[in-house]
Amino acid sequence: MKRSCPPIVTLTTDFGLRDAYVAEMKGCILSLCPNAVLVDISHQIPAGDIQEGAFVLARAAGSFPPAAVHLAVVDPGVGGTRRALAVESSRFRAVGPDNGLLTPFLDGVQAVALNPAGAQGRAPAATFHGRDLFAPAAARLARGDALASLGGPVVDALVRLPGATGPCVLHVDRFGNCVTNIDPRQVPPGGSWSVQAGDRHISLRVSTYCEAPAGEPVLILGSDGRMEIALRGGSAAGTLNLARGDRLEVIQQNSTPPRREKST
Amino acid sequence: MKRSCPPIVTLTTDFGLRDAYVAEMKGCILSLCPNAVLVDISHQIPAGDIQEGAFVLARAAGSFPPAAVHLAVVDPGVGGTRRALAVESSRFRAVGPDNGLLTPFLDGVQAVALNPAGAQGRAPAATFHGRDLFAPAAARLARGDALASLGGPVVDALVRLPGATGPCVLHVDRFGNCVTNIDPRQVPPGGSWSVQAGDRHISLRVSTYCEAPAGEPVLILGSDGRMEIALRGGSAAGTLNLARGDRLEVIQQNSTPPRREKST
Amino acid sequence: MKRSCPPIVTLTTDFGLRDAYVAEMKGCILSLCPNAVLVDISHQIPAGDIQEGAFVLARAAGSFPPAAVHLAVVDPGVGGTRRALAVESSRFRAVGPDNGLLTPFLDGVQAVALNPAGAQGRAPAATFHGRDLFAPAAARLARGDALASLGGPVVDALVRLPGATGPCVLHVDRFGNCVTNIDPRQVPPGGSWSVQAGDRHISLRVSTYCEAPAGEPVLILGSDGRMEIALRGGSAAGTLNLARGDRLEVIQQNSTPPRREKST
Repeated sequence: MKRSCPPIVTLTTDFGLRDAYVAEMKGCILSLCPNAVLVDISHQIPAGDIQEGAFVLARAAGSFPPAAVHLAVVDPGVGGTRRALAVESSRFRAVGPDNGLLTPFLDGVQAVALNPAGAQGRAPAATFHGRDLFAPAAARLARGDALASLGGPVVDALVRLPGATGPCVLHVDRFGNCVTNIDPRQVPPGGSWSVQAGDRHISLRVSTYCEAPAGEPVLILGSDGRMEIALRGGSAAGTLNLARGDRLEVIQQNSTPPRREKST
Repeated sequence: MKRSCPPIVTLTTDFGLRDAYVAEMKGCILSLCPNAVLVDISHQIPAGDIQEGAFVLARAAGSFPPAAVHLAVVDPGVGGTRRALAVESSRFRAVGPDNGLLTPFLDGVQAVALNPAGAQGRAPAATFHGRDLFAPAAARLARGDALASLGGPVVDALVRLPGATGPCVLHVDRFGNCVTNIDPRQVPPGGSWSVQAGDRHISLRVSTYCEAPAGEPVLILGSDGRMEIALRGGSAAGTLNLARGDRLEVIQQNSTPPRREKST
Repeated sequence: MKRSCPPIVTLTTDFGLRDAYVAEMKGCILSLCPNAVLVDISHQIPAGDIQEGAFVLARAAGSFPPAAVHLAVVDPGVGGTRRALAVESSRFRAVGPDNGLLTPFLDGVQAVALNPAGAQGRAPAATFHGRDLFAPAAARLARGDALASLGGPVVDALVRLPGATGPCVLHVDRFGNCVTNIDPRQVPPGGSWSVQAGDRHISLRVSTYCEAPAGEPVLILGSDGRMEIALRGGSAAGTLNLARGDRLEVIQQNSTPPRREKST
């Protein structure tokens, strides 16, 4: 079956769905790699929001075969000095600006800086590298061109987003669930624990949304292995007034006796 | 031609287009069925709105070949006791929760309850059966696995949405057209008829939108064979203050003489 | 490679993404042309906005191979007297209503008026030619049917949108960039020039967005060869209160001496 697998190119941008921009990239990809399977990850990344783009990419990429090429364009510095990259490892292949957006793909990666002249035989428009530089590179990777044919090797450090320095809200999804960076496997064992979000204390942990009592925010293990704060049938983010980046606190109770348990 | 038809998998969810959720399902499908043709029906079903999901599915499915697999996830009870289904008849194949969402597909159907362990070799995340349970099952159906290989047969009744008990608005579309459940072939013949919507009486019937006088709501035969209330160049729902579920009344006039015609 | 290129069908409509309408067209296309590659250009064209549809189509189509079939449905006159067209030239193939929407494709084109009865063997729904008339015609063109097999030749003039009579804003994109119809190659040489937009004078020209000073609207050469008015990290349209159709003025300064330069 492997032999006949058509190549996958995913697309993640902040271009929205009203304009022609995404379609221009797709037309360009199909011109160079006619049997590409194009999969939109999201084009609703807020304009210029590299961090949100990286989060969504990290989530989605784990579900695709390693051969898929992830084309990502959230690129407020387009035309400036930031480099244009193609990267490849045993787990991922990706194309995009060197501005932190590709952070999920950079471990153990080989990287090249895209050669502008090589892409289309003409200089890319300074305002639309998505179409003129990144899309052709993604198409070439997808159709089997070697990474090294796309540009010169990058030997110095690639731009990475800084990791969070403590528990926080990573993402608010369309249901209002607050995805956190709290990995329950990393909370020290012994005793129960809960989460403080501003002046709200969230201590009830459930396994599924439908176990949650109506109106009460709960902790639940999300599908990417980290804890979420959820509200059954409603928006936890709206109710708790939480947004991306808000800090959280993990509060551990001793198993015996639970003295820090408050009476309120 | 049949031999070379790539398998179709449609997707209908309430996941929206901002998050990675839809792409995670697609990555999973393409991992198991690389030549699948993925077609989005809608991901803008209001969160948890099973009825709207079933309506949109019923509309769209009629235009696809019977071999298409319709993957549908509007699933407020994910992880709870509701069953996960794959169903198959001579007209449709579908995968989704047993919560009424698959109502359009249940006539004369064979059904199995999906086997969680069988899908990926590991337990599905309790919060994302779309990716871990439904998408793999849809991919397997699409690539030719037998329905019976996906789970055990279901012999008791499947959950169906209750039908409307009288004339009503089934759906308001993006143009503000109100799709009703009034089938003009079922209105008893003899005499003309009109529709009462709240305190508004809609009696003008037209064949095309452009026959409608400006500013006057009209009745028009919709593309699925039921009557719509429409307003040329505007929103009938907005103008008449109509929403899904609002009750309507079909008023029949005797052909001679039209005594029920009111003077107001 | 040509031999194995799957046929491309692009879709541009004002149907939005909530309803089933777009999927109904896609199901119809795949039923007639199972190996079609479907690419959405936009379904967010404002309802009935033929001019915006034509603009987006013109932008996107240039990035696709000439064999792609562009299916376009922004069709407030559906069911009325406007003709249904399929057109073909050495550069483009397109299907849609004869209402101006296909303006980008009409130079040097052969055109036929679609034969309703021929499409599906039954009359199309008067309210949904997208599904019943245009989609089947696009699928047939895509799979290789001759243009002449779809309908009778059109010999009289096709409907074209009037061109702008002077400098103006053609389009406001999702970033708030104002795409104009000012082609810098057509501004007479000799001396610098700037743009007046209402009471705002925009004289700073930059090559890339990141050269723009914060808070100052700039002129920049857009990716389709025309000037854009942009604001780094913000919305030029919002800040300058500009909308599509707003008139602009190109002000030329003599190279020596710049007497028209105002002191304000």
